[in-house]
Amino acid sequence: MIEAKATDEASDLREGEVAVELPARFDAALYYIGRIHTPWQRREDCPKNPRETDAVCTIVLDPRWVEGLRGLETVSHVVVLYWMDRARRDLVLQAPHHYAELRGTFALRSPVRPNPIAVSVARLVRIEGNRLSVVGLDCVDGTPLLDLKPYFASTDSVPDAAVGWHAAKPPPRR
Amino acid sequence: MIEAKATDEASDLREGEVAVELPARFDAALYYIGRIHTPWQRREDCPKNPRETDAVCTIVLDPRWVEGLRGLETVSHVVVLYWMDRARRDLVLQAPHHYAELRGTFALRSPVRPNPIAVSVARLVRIEGNRLSVVGLDCVDGTPLLDLKPYFASTDSVPDAAVGWHAAKPPPRR
Repeated sequence: MIEAKATDEASDLREGEVAVELPARFDAALYYIGRIHTPWQRREDCPKNPRETDAVCTIVLDPRWVEGLRGLETVSHVVVLYWMDRARRDLVLQAPHHYAELRGTFALRSPVRPNPIAVSVARLVRIEGNRLSVVGLDCVDGTPLLDLKPYFASTDSVPDAAVGWHAAKPPPRR
Repeated sequence: MIEAKATDEASDLREGEVAVELPARFDAALYYIGRIHTPWQRREDCPKNPRETDAVCTIVLDPRWVEGLRGLETVSHVVVLYWMDRARRDLVLQAPHHYAELRGTFALRSPVRPNPIAVSVARLVRIEGNRLSVVGLDCVDGTPLLDLKPYFASTDSVPDAAVGWHAAKPPPRR
């Protein structure tokens, strides 16, 4: 049984960050369907975003689901959903260390969010049995896999999309 | 407490579809953080994909999380994650009614998958308090919301991505 708990990490907040009380119970539940293997053992070693690396990562799907891959070998890019299991879930305003300003959780791609599900678009290199080689992930080695989907340019690609705050942001404080 | 259960829907399988035994327990859990309001009351009324409609849909965020929207008003497009709570979760091979052939679950965008999380890219029209008006969703009215993220063209857009089986598919049997 998985129980919701209120935060006990208030002392870890950066200046201006705001945590809320988490709901008393969960509403739905997830299966880990595999693991993602990457060259990065610690969060601080990971690339800042998936386009910063050409590393080939390996997705190992639980054998239970392997027939679900049929047809995926014909796609060029895969939408990879994974679970950022080390992230706290109660922050609504955050100051990620590489940005100078506080932002709302939903304006950021930070792992810290009520449901820490990451969405990454990865280039598919090869499928062998239950193992997929892909380029374009930036997560820690051993990250739990939640889903794989074909990437459709017709519905998933918006080349001229803009993130105003990011375009206008001051230089990073590193 | 949410318990996993084995499928008892074997009789609902279409020809050639394959169901697996679901794992005995879940690994992680989700909060519904809001609801999505759309013009479509039944699954069969929904558009087949998000680019087929110009309907403005309304995402109502639970007030608990509203500060998390700060900064999101500057984005043109939002990645919307939602939970397809009516879908069975145990199929690995499926024959969606608008395609002629069996495919693996991970080669499809079908709601039927081990973790029925949908990923849609929606154009942001307006934010008022805890309500977001967006264009580009295709889900049933009342669908539970899981997450909102800014869409970054630099990492999320792949205009030349290809789905081989889809490009080569025979005409739909409707």
